[in-house]
Amino acid sequence: MSSPPTLDHDGLHRSIAELATIGAIPGGGVCRLALTDEDGEARQHIVARMRALGLEISIDQIGNIFGLRRGRSGGAPVATGSHIDTVRTGGRYDGTLGVLAAFSVIEALNAAELQTQRPVQVCVFTNEEGARFQPDMMGSLVATGALPVEEALATTGIDGTTVAENLGRLGYHGGISCGALRPAAFVELHIEQGPVLERAGQQIGAVEGVQGIAWSEFIFEGATNHAGTTPMAGRRDSGFAAAAVAAHVRSLATEFGGDQVATVGRLELFPNLVNVIPGRALLNTDLRNTDDAVLTEATRRLAAFAAETAAQEGVALSHRDLARFAPVPFDPRIVATVERYAETRGHSVRRMPSGAGHDAQMLAAVCPTGMIFVPSAGGVSHNAAEYSSPHAIEAGADLLLDVLLSLANTDKEFQ
Amino acid sequence: MSSPPTLDHDGLHRSIAELATIGAIPGGGVCRLALTDEDGEARQHIVARMRALGLEISIDQIGNIFGLRRGRSGGAPVATGSHIDTVRTGGRYDGTLGVLAAFSVIEALNAAELQTQRPVQVCVFTNEEGARFQPDMMGSLVATGALPVEEALATTGIDGTTVAENLGRLGYHGGISCGALRPAAFVELHIEQGPVLERAGQQIGAVEGVQGIAWSEFIFEGATNHAGTTPMAGRRDSGFAAAAVAAHVRSLATEFGGDQVATVGRLELFPNLVNVIPGRALLNTDLRNTDDAVLTEATRRLAAFAAETAAQEGVALSHRDLARFAPVPFDPRIVATVERYAETRGHSVRRMPSGAGHDAQMLAAVCPTGMIFVPSAGGVSHNAAEYSSPHAIEAGADLLLDVLLSLANTDKEFQ
Repeated sequence: MSSPPTLDHDGLHRSIAELATIGAIPGGGVCRLALTDEDGEARQHIVARMRALGLEISIDQIGNIFGLRRGRSGGAPVATGSHIDTVRTGGRYDGTLGVLAAFSVIEALNAAELQTQRPVQVCVFTNEEGARFQPDMMGSLVATGALPVEEALATTGIDGTTVAENLGRLGYHGGISCGALRPAAFVELHIEQGPVLERAGQQIGAVEGVQGIAWSEFIFEGATNHAGTTPMAGRRDSGFAAAAVAAHVRSLATEFGGDQVATVGRLELFPNLVNVIPGRALLNTDLRNTDDAVLTEATRRLAAFAAETAAQEGVALSHRDLARFAPVPFDPRIVATVERYAETRGHSVRRMPSGAGHDAQMLAAVCPTGMIFVPSAGGVSHNAAEYSSPHAIEAGADLLLDVLLSLANTDKEFQ
Repeated sequence: MSSPPTLDHDGLHRSIAELATIGAIPGGGVCRLALTDEDGEARQHIVARMRALGLEISIDQIGNIFGLRRGRSGGAPVATGSHIDTVRTGGRYDGTLGVLAAFSVIEALNAAELQTQRPVQVCVFTNEEGARFQPDMMGSLVATGALPVEEALATTGIDGTTVAENLGRLGYHGGISCGALRPAAFVELHIEQGPVLERAGQQIGAVEGVQGIAWSEFIFEGATNHAGTTPMAGRRDSGFAAAAVAAHVRSLATEFGGDQVATVGRLELFPNLVNVIPGRALLNTDLRNTDDAVLTEATRRLAAFAAETAAQEGVALSHRDLARFAPVPFDPRIVATVERYAETRGHSVRRMPSGAGHDAQMLAAVCPTGMIFVPSAGGVSHNAAEYSSPHAIEAGADLLLDVLLSLANTDKEFQ
């Protein structure tokens, strides 16, 4: 056996820059919506990399791409990976880092001529972002059996075409059945997409789980009236109701404290004219918490406040949940492994939740799972300005190597 | 001399229904944006009516149409009228009633073979609504000299064409110079467009003046960030700042009380996605009051609150006035005349301000002016459902006849 495996840092940086040329947008960002021509070109690039690395390639019915490196035993692989699709104004690290760092790990194992006990598998999941086709995390949902493949394939995107049509067009409607993905373990390296690590001056996040998410839509229906001729007393102002609820969302977050975050990202008035009392207002709220009971209570309180405000204003309210995901805890053994190897490398490490959704949370339902976060400059993501320093990327990729090696060489049964 | 002049009520109702067929939209409404083909067709109809009534027709450089009925003396006419353009989803009474009722008055004078002392003039002003070309009340602004005709003609509309181009296309770029319109008096009949008369169970509004208007635009610029990964503490949420200010606008109105009205009709978030903290938010406010000093104070307080909110949230604020009109008082003699004749006819009458802008407020700068309001069902206007009962229309038109006759037959010099 030769020297211990070592990651080619420069090669990793080059590969990130290279993939960022596919779908490049001004400012260094990337627009590579799922299953567009750009995504297709990136997939060809990924498959070529897998082939060059000697991985056994398979593609499933939803277009997830898997590259397997055999181990000494033939059991379930230790898996890693992420996604290569982006939002419309995406950065070059979100998702991509987890895929390309996994390739660097494989390359390092190849260079060291090191055969792990378990196989190691690199997964590239279809449509993690959900920016073209809903829901997001589609590939990992389908692969793990949480969403029927037929339903996902029939999904119509923002341009009116279906997932199935686009997979066919690009040649990525694979033959492998979906729903039974069961790795021995799964570890995903990802940028934090938030400011916590940077602000704390810490280098690695050992992700303990994913926050629970509650998205709600509130629609207030009042009466469209003239802003000048309608006395205050007789108004049924749906815009006021929406604004009052939007302001209350902040109060809720402050009151609950801790990890609770609460956001109004979308608010629309109709007809949206300076001198017309809005007859209709639409409000979307995004509440997240690591504690499901607290999240449920925050959601209940918000709905109650909205109902009370609507009643006071004399406007009708319709309310529906757009999304509700329970918090996903990661496997404590994987979290501890990430933490331990980070410390061994001399990195400062922080246990933290993920505020964003990731493919790893779908894998967590079927195997021991964890994630590694590296700092995002300014917490910026989904933006051409998304940036993680070379040092942060190297630290994350080295740690991914350590953790995968450890998991792939243990005899311990995780499941 | 024959019997006293009497209005043909059925003829007035028929003429309203007939004009409503030009630019008709579903639900009984009208879309007749200024200087469109529909407006052109309505203008032809108006000119034909004037010709049939024996009026001397003149058209000025901004396309205002004037129809003069000679009096025994040759001085300045007593004028009336309104507009025939509508908003995109307009009703059949706004503006139109004032024009067609004026024709009914002329028709009654003709039938009674009654010659007034002063001439009586019917004015049909171009682009009162401002829905296609800004500013609104353009024709009366230009006719009275408050806006240079060259500036108005060069105005580009929402479809990229100019007022001058459209006047030329329709053949309504008249030869009469603008800026010197100086009637002896002006009275406009209009629907209330608000709920005050209907709620009070009163039949006639003797309009004392037009509320002052202050329109402001606030733009908050914060930081676009991920709703899940950005802790509450570090947020610069322009959407929250806008919502807090929108909710405060209501508090301001409540606090100032009286005639004060305050509205947020327009609010936009960017990028307006459920899971993105808005990096930019735009807010338009509409404050109105009959007391200019109170309006100024309300506007100042609103700007101060917005600045304070922006500072607390760490977002940049830019603020500009979109419009600021001082309250316009109408001539107390005209208001008293309206009130007196309403009572003589046995109608309940209410002195009230106009919350909306009208051509009459431009005339008020150059001659003694007043307005007659009739109730709007439900206070609804700028809507296909706009409705005033036949009885209300008849009461208003009869009163217009009385008031015009009184003003046209007095020797008193108003100016």
